[in-house]
Amino acid sequence: MLVGRIIKQQAVLTKQICRAYSAVGIPELTQDRLNVKRDDYATLKDGDITFFQSIVGSRYTLQEDLQAYNLDFYYTVRGNSKLVLKPGSTQEVSAILKYCNERKLAVCPQGGNTSVVGASVPVFDEIVLSLARLNKIINIDEMTGIATCEAGCILENLDNKARELDLIIPLDLGGRSSCHLGGNISTNAGGLRVVRYGNLHGNVLGLEVVLANGEVMDLMSDFKKDNTGYHLKHLFIGAEGTLGIVTKLSILCAPLPQAQHLAFIGLPSFNDVLKTFKSARSNLGEILSACEMIDAPTLQASLDHFEVSSPINGFPFYMLIETSGSNWQHDLAKINNFIEIGMEKGEIVDGTIASELGKMQEIWKLRELAAMSFGKDGYCFYYDLSLPLRKFYDIVDVVKDRVGSLATRVGGFGHLGDSNLHLNVSCPKYSPELYQKLEPFVYEYIHKLKGSVSAEHGIGFLKKNYLKFSKSPQAIQMMKDIKMQLDPKGILNPYKVLQ
Amino acid sequence: MLVGRIIKQQAVLTKQICRAYSAVGIPELTQDRLNVKRDDYATLKDGDITFFQSIVGSRYTLQEDLQAYNLDFYYTVRGNSKLVLKPGSTQEVSAILKYCNERKLAVCPQGGNTSVVGASVPVFDEIVLSLARLNKIINIDEMTGIATCEAGCILENLDNKARELDLIIPLDLGGRSSCHLGGNISTNAGGLRVVRYGNLHGNVLGLEVVLANGEVMDLMSDFKKDNTGYHLKHLFIGAEGTLGIVTKLSILCAPLPQAQHLAFIGLPSFNDVLKTFKSARSNLGEILSACEMIDAPTLQASLDHFEVSSPINGFPFYMLIETSGSNWQHDLAKINNFIEIGMEKGEIVDGTIASELGKMQEIWKLRELAAMSFGKDGYCFYYDLSLPLRKFYDIVDVVKDRVGSLATRVGGFGHLGDSNLHLNVSCPKYSPELYQKLEPFVYEYIHKLKGSVSAEHGIGFLKKNYLKFSKSPQAIQMMKDIKMQLDPKGILNPYKVLQ
Repeated sequence: MLVGRIIKQQAVLTKQICRAYSAVGIPELTQDRLNVKRDDYATLKDGDITFFQSIVGSRYTLQEDLQAYNLDFYYTVRGNSKLVLKPGSTQEVSAILKYCNERKLAVCPQGGNTSVVGASVPVFDEIVLSLARLNKIINIDEMTGIATCEAGCILENLDNKARELDLIIPLDLGGRSSCHLGGNISTNAGGLRVVRYGNLHGNVLGLEVVLANGEVMDLMSDFKKDNTGYHLKHLFIGAEGTLGIVTKLSILCAPLPQAQHLAFIGLPSFNDVLKTFKSARSNLGEILSACEMIDAPTLQASLDHFEVSSPINGFPFYMLIETSGSNWQHDLAKINNFIEIGMEKGEIVDGTIASELGKMQEIWKLRELAAMSFGKDGYCFYYDLSLPLRKFYDIVDVVKDRVGSLATRVGGFGHLGDSNLHLNVSCPKYSPELYQKLEPFVYEYIHKLKGSVSAEHGIGFLKKNYLKFSKSPQAIQMMKDIKMQLDPKGILNPYKVLQ
Repeated sequence: MLVGRIIKQQAVLTKQICRAYSAVGIPELTQDRLNVKRDDYATLKDGDITFFQSIVGSRYTLQEDLQAYNLDFYYTVRGNSKLVLKPGSTQEVSAILKYCNERKLAVCPQGGNTSVVGASVPVFDEIVLSLARLNKIINIDEMTGIATCEAGCILENLDNKARELDLIIPLDLGGRSSCHLGGNISTNAGGLRVVRYGNLHGNVLGLEVVLANGEVMDLMSDFKKDNTGYHLKHLFIGAEGTLGIVTKLSILCAPLPQAQHLAFIGLPSFNDVLKTFKSARSNLGEILSACEMIDAPTLQASLDHFEVSSPINGFPFYMLIETSGSNWQHDLAKINNFIEIGMEKGEIVDGTIASELGKMQEIWKLRELAAMSFGKDGYCFYYDLSLPLRKFYDIVDVVKDRVGSLATRVGGFGHLGDSNLHLNVSCPKYSPELYQKLEPFVYEYIHKLKGSVSAEHGIGFLKKNYLKFSKSPQAIQMMKDIKMQLDPKGILNPYKVLQ
């Protein structure tokens, strides 16, 4: 149950981060702060409320104290919804959407509301449709490893239940204690262990989705192999609730690892980071479960702002390399061998291997605090990018040169094993000058390298102006055509993803 | 290079199988044999030929000796195309489709023509668009493990090239020596190692696709994490060339395993097969690379018709369990331990572990000959099904009872690790009475269990009447809407997948 305990400790960290953000104060309404225009959706009338009450009951038709539903995790966007509905079944979701579609009432589906791109809060007065009550774990089959649950099930809850059967959900990320599986799927959430288990397109076996017109689309399946016609479920994985609302799912669990080891190593150059990643893929192959990189400014930010210490210091680059396997001794031998090879070649200069829970937690803290620590400099511009691995780190140096003394700190870290870089630029307080140096420069730079302007967070509301930097006009047109086909009145999560 | 040699040996087997099929004789034209009506597509005129010659050149505008393009792998369907085009670039594919769309000329895209559901041959006089010349390996990046190639690249060729860089393509199947990557993607091909590497939705990173109107859709990506809008590439994975023609792709390779072991075990009951699968998942976890089941009639069929011998005999069920890992000793210790646990519990009665190439090849032969051996009884009805694991084998017994003495042999085998059963029913020669006992019974049975009527082969032409047993009317309608959106004139691979 080693892994379970590491995860619990990470959940505590997440809560600390949430508290820190709440200190920045409630932002203005998005509609006032930014240049957005309300589309011509209907506005709520008394009759609507009466109808919704007849469907979900008065208790779940909320009209007061809606701030938690209108405000995002990072306190950057704030909607003005006057109504939150909490359906208790797929049929209720269906009845609500059918009605909203007929009335042309806009709807914002909401899971655990952990989106960092404003995907899960309304922009104007959209009705918030919270999936929180659809939280049943329907079944976890010990034999087949298939977990089936409703969309509002919290990731950590499903994972805990799976662990009781020696299984794990093949997805893990910072928001695990509050994010919903339905939201994970709608975002195609990535996280820490994609390098091992792949993304949700490979692991989600089936979905039930309610379309804008209330139609229930049964795409449930228990099979990895099911080649009967178009593979429709993938349309809804990563569609951020704009094409339909996921209400149920089945996902293939992985076997619970019996052993974990964690190496924290210092490297002399980014080129050595790359060589070490290649060596990890080849020498740790099947047991490699995380391959993270932190640069020196990022580590320093954590050391400056939190009471943590690093087992090694003084290197330009650090890596966390985790193994998860079924045999403690075998895995330890492999990771020791991997470190030895790296040190002999001079690619790894120093390092430590932790195999005990406490030590592994201490090391993971250095990585998990990274995002948060930049914010503590005052203000931080965050970027979540995918970049060709050979060019992975160049952007950090380029941005550093470009912003000069306007920034307190420029650092890069992230899921190297998935080509996913988090670029952070901090400053004492929000600086329009720095902002103008950064944007659209960063996105244009990514575009030139054919990278992704949103690796794992999605487009949501905050990044929709940048979609064009990662998708061709033809692809964007195809998306619009599909949106028009599935949601012709545009009632589902408007103002998100597409312009 | 152990794994490479096993694969080469398998390729020889495939060729033997092809030769055996050619002995059954050329079938009637599909249009004459089955009740199908030609849709109102245009027919070829001299001006069309002149145009196509101007695009691809006379050499690649074939009008004679077209049998190999009109006839499928199993000699079950035969089209009547009078024209085969072999474009040499995406631009040529685009120009051809633009023209065909304007003229309403139907097109049958063709890869390695290894489809067993009649997906890759014309039904009437569709123009065959062969991707065979688009066979360039564009790049395999040793560092990132990303392979990029054109769609007509043969799976085995790409895999051989990857192996030179200590990588493998995470897909392996019987047709490896002739099937194309583009066809694999269009079929969402499964095969032997899905249990380890997952299916193509997880491994394909990017696609280039030419739409019916000739528009080139650039969905290429080098990233597992790329959450920028709808995940469009998945629409084309498994669409069997009916929504667009795949012309280029990138796929994430896996590290080349350094060690392989293969256990062949005998089990007293299907319940023990299930328990042993669970034990393999948990005890072999990260090194499990194949988990196949063969029942006694299937093994007997191979022994009756081929010069092979089995290291163990006399059990109702057999399993092949393969490990692929990075450390020979570690993996051997794990598989030995796994067998010991199974034998102590009485779930495994007898078994052998092969770690040498020759012995592993001998054992794999027993599995690879299975499909072929039933055909040697005279005639065989083949089914490729996904079934809930607990009910995986029931259908074999049910069918056995139902068909009684009409069948020579009823057997089940397949990719247990992926819930994928191949059910074979043989008889001395084609029997309409037996056929009527089997169909639609088998499909209705699968429907009741919410199984899949086509696990890995696709729907193609031969299974389109059975799509309804695995997909709801709503899902089929959504497929039709998408088809209408992307190919309004229906020129792409008509008569396939949808009615």
